[in-house]
Amino acid sequence: MADVTSALFFAEMSFDPRNPHNPDADRFILSKGHAAPILYAAWAEAGAFDRSELLKLRQIGSDLEGHPTPRLPFVDVATGSLGQGVCAAIGSALNARRIGSAYRTYVLLGDGETAEGSVWEAANVGALDRLDNLCGITDVNGLGQSRPTMWQHDMDQFARRWQAFGWHAIVIDGHDLHAILDAFARARATKGQPTMILARTIKGKGVSFVEGKEGWHGRAFKKDEMDRALAELDRQFVPASAGVDLARQIPRPPTVPRPAVAPQAIVPPTYRIGDQVATREAYGAALTKLGEADPRVVALDADVKNSTFSERFEKALPNRFYENFIAEQVMVGAAMGLAARGAIPYPSTFACFLTRAADFIRMAAISRVNVKLAGSHAGVSIGEDGPSQMALEDLSMFRAQPDFAVLYPSDGVSTERLVALAASHPGPVYIRLSRPKTPIIYANDERFEIGGLKVLRQSARDVATVVAAGVTLFEALKAHDALQSSSTPIRVIDLYSLAPIDREGLLAAARATAGHIITVEDHYAAGGLGDAVAEAVAGAGFTVHRLAVREIARSGKPEELLERFGISAAHIVTAVREVTVGAR
Amino acid sequence: MADVTSALFFAEMSFDPRNPHNPDADRFILSKGHAAPILYAAWAEAGAFDRSELLKLRQIGSDLEGHPTPRLPFVDVATGSLGQGVCAAIGSALNARRIGSAYRTYVLLGDGETAEGSVWEAANVGALDRLDNLCGITDVNGLGQSRPTMWQHDMDQFARRWQAFGWHAIVIDGHDLHAILDAFARARATKGQPTMILARTIKGKGVSFVEGKEGWHGRAFKKDEMDRALAELDRQFVPASAGVDLARQIPRPPTVPRPAVAPQAIVPPTYRIGDQVATREAYGAALTKLGEADPRVVALDADVKNSTFSERFEKALPNRFYENFIAEQVMVGAAMGLAARGAIPYPSTFACFLTRAADFIRMAAISRVNVKLAGSHAGVSIGEDGPSQMALEDLSMFRAQPDFAVLYPSDGVSTERLVALAASHPGPVYIRLSRPKTPIIYANDERFEIGGLKVLRQSARDVATVVAAGVTLFEALKAHDALQSSSTPIRVIDLYSLAPIDREGLLAAARATAGHIITVEDHYAAGGLGDAVAEAVAGAGFTVHRLAVREIARSGKPEELLERFGISAAHIVTAVREVTVGAR
Repeated sequence: MADVTSALFFAEMSFDPRNPHNPDADRFILSKGHAAPILYAAWAEAGAFDRSELLKLRQIGSDLEGHPTPRLPFVDVATGSLGQGVCAAIGSALNARRIGSAYRTYVLLGDGETAEGSVWEAANVGALDRLDNLCGITDVNGLGQSRPTMWQHDMDQFARRWQAFGWHAIVIDGHDLHAILDAFARARATKGQPTMILARTIKGKGVSFVEGKEGWHGRAFKKDEMDRALAELDRQFVPASAGVDLARQIPRPPTVPRPAVAPQAIVPPTYRIGDQVATREAYGAALTKLGEADPRVVALDADVKNSTFSERFEKALPNRFYENFIAEQVMVGAAMGLAARGAIPYPSTFACFLTRAADFIRMAAISRVNVKLAGSHAGVSIGEDGPSQMALEDLSMFRAQPDFAVLYPSDGVSTERLVALAASHPGPVYIRLSRPKTPIIYANDERFEIGGLKVLRQSARDVATVVAAGVTLFEALKAHDALQSSSTPIRVIDLYSLAPIDREGLLAAARATAGHIITVEDHYAAGGLGDAVAEAVAGAGFTVHRLAVREIARSGKPEELLERFGISAAHIVTAVREVTVGAR
Repeated sequence: MADVTSALFFAEMSFDPRNPHNPDADRFILSKGHAAPILYAAWAEAGAFDRSELLKLRQIGSDLEGHPTPRLPFVDVATGSLGQGVCAAIGSALNARRIGSAYRTYVLLGDGETAEGSVWEAANVGALDRLDNLCGITDVNGLGQSRPTMWQHDMDQFARRWQAFGWHAIVIDGHDLHAILDAFARARATKGQPTMILARTIKGKGVSFVEGKEGWHGRAFKKDEMDRALAELDRQFVPASAGVDLARQIPRPPTVPRPAVAPQAIVPPTYRIGDQVATREAYGAALTKLGEADPRVVALDADVKNSTFSERFEKALPNRFYENFIAEQVMVGAAMGLAARGAIPYPSTFACFLTRAADFIRMAAISRVNVKLAGSHAGVSIGEDGPSQMALEDLSMFRAQPDFAVLYPSDGVSTERLVALAASHPGPVYIRLSRPKTPIIYANDERFEIGGLKVLRQSARDVATVVAAGVTLFEALKAHDALQSSSTPIRVIDLYSLAPIDREGLLAAARATAGHIITVEDHYAAGGLGDAVAEAVAGAGFTVHRLAVREIARSGKPEELLERFGISAAHIVTAVREVTVGAR
């Protein structure tokens, strides 16, 4: 990789090592993140930081981690889970188009990495979107971690795949600098399609006892091996001819003046109390208003835009809507790349299909990127389509990640407000949306905050607190009315923000209701709303009685399923009676 | 799809509708699960059940769900999350080879579905493994859910991709029965590679007002539309000529007598107390012994066999070891297909990379298949490689799924015993493994059970219970010793089974230690060991003090990271003091 990286950093790319975030600088993404040392070496050599820092590699006090993370200013997205950097590169290339910049995006993949399906999702989208500002390089060294790779040095295996997927494929000797530079020049001249340079390389090239041999992956040299290797490399060193032209390092100015980013006020919701509106539908409306107010906002879809209502955004703002077809990994990965370059991306699909991108979500959290994911059709309340279409573990997936905001609106007003708040919240956000229509319960000017909750029903005589969100909130309200008639008032909380969570608000309710807290969620029992509330109040000695889906769901009518899986108003009423009768 | 399905069910496939599980019956997997109605119609027509059942489609009392699930005896794996059935088909085809059966596996994909990266993971593995007993059919109708598909009716886009990936690709008119039957015959005659039949179809063919039109995806006919459609179809109906040959429906007997499955006794562990053994290494040993004792056991890898030590299984039992290279989705999907056909598959990789297959794990839970996943390199204790390689949300991911057993051994003996127990436990199992070497603490004849725990330290004066597993168990033991010297004895529990969980065992400890429970886990705070214990004891009014990783991790030495992220012995000691001083 030394040859390819040298050519990229010191002849091909335009960038400013002292200002890696220059919006017009070419981008380099190391998709094979395990090769981090050469990335760090290249940036040090370019002048981004002092070379002495390199000796702190992988130490706890250094940001030069085992795999690249955006703790370093020149890293856009964390890599190290293979097949992800190339998806982020799609987003980076789309962003150049969005801001009207001539910057190019380069992404370096491993050969073994191309077994990951996400690589081929990126390949499809790159070709479809005709991203000729994108150039991939595959380091075909033929050796995987545990054995030779699938295709080893059979370059045609690679070339025919990339060509079949619509890319300009160039096979070269990856140790021939002239061939490398020529390939980059051909890539720059290619219009209407991305280029993949397939570089045949020898792992450990130039070190006789390592070259092309297995057993050295991720293994450091011992002292004597290192001495020998350095001596061999020194003998092969050819000093650069005087006056190497590093002029390409200065980013080109934008070809057209870039419009200033000046978000305008967002049009407020205009519902009437009692109107029936699915939160997924309110999401479409909110996203469109947000996009009209803020040019950084973009939307991404995976062929369900008519179910998530993101099609409204596409209709209003087609140039900032990216269709990925049925490919959730590249949808989320591209969103990560867009976010790293200043866009505020809203990828959305059915919440259950976001689990397809769980590893990307994990890496988005590590990257701390500014993505706003929305998942619709949460829970058994979708009804007849059955368990494969029901998200019952999405809250768990997102809550598990530190610093991920997790929002779960129940009506159209709170949806519109939370979708807008997500845009101004720094870092990753998840918004859970429901399929069924639910009544508007908030006034259009109601104020929400990330980390807040709403107490919807309360009295001085409340015997228990019921915490709900989304569709179960309406079950809690029904339970409240039923219990009210038998003089057993309950407090009802809309926990629209699961993370961060309003601990004080929950504790106040718990204290006011003799510590009787019942949670009810259209989600499995582990990792969701019940666990969130339980941890929040545990320090004060309160426990939680949880109503949640506790077995594999099935097809049926939504109301039948709420009943069958124990999260209906009737079950809440029973739980309130049990909890208050069997008081400690 | 009516034409393709008719040809498959009534001319091509050998199967017994009254015994779908016949081990030599051809398999049919509907990867485009949303087309469930035609699957049900075909099986009813073949005689699997009464046609009147079809009218109960999607009703709560019927197993004819919105998408197919193995509640139905003729469904091997649940489908409905696209791109998964084709991965299961790889496993089904591998299983035929394993048991020496001539059965063939057919899998029907949607055209839009082929945008999913997992399809191309399956394509690679199918070609590499030369699965000529596998035949795919892609229904190229050109219409996605929300818009025309990526390539619409450009058949060459499909053909060149499958050819590039090494499959025999056949393009046909999907409404020409002779062409369909001829393609199946050509697929059967093809040796050394799988076949993909690319069937150009018109959605809604034969119903004039629907044919080839958008807006009908997932939409039911109204009464008058239905009457008109049926009338149009009736006019086109051609009765089968008398004496249609359904002889192919009878599965062929095995060509060679199949060895009886008679698992032998597993060689017990042979460690000495105090030996230093990483649980991942014990996993490799255990898996090999298990495979030697039970011919149903198979292992799957994603190019980390030298890190998970599954390479030991490969060395001993190469014919039951399946290398998927760096492609976790097809690894888990193939395991699902193998499990559905009677194998006991152990797919393993780094635990963090199992999140790449999170959606497959979700569908494995819905399918209730007998897969045993193992994830190594859990937590910050992997050290220098950094957060991208650390699984800190895997317990959450697996615990979220109902009926998933979640095991987390801490030493070599418990690892060997739990790996063996997993094989005899019906349904899906997850085994969490660690990178560092840890001392053997159990005698070789110690007995474990799924759903059990071990109390490792206890006295009549214990002030608190510390619940740990894996690497943190040894921190708890160190904390015990430190506290012992200051006359503050604590109870230490090895919670090697997180799901199911030994509620009574935990409650007994809580009651004996004044309700002071501290959990400590090398995992994020949400959804893991702390939440598991908290829910188990909540009903008795006990709360839990949780030590867990609460921010994005980073590179460093393992012991530095345990300290920095608050899960070391020193943090446990502090927590014990806090909890017991600040008692309620």
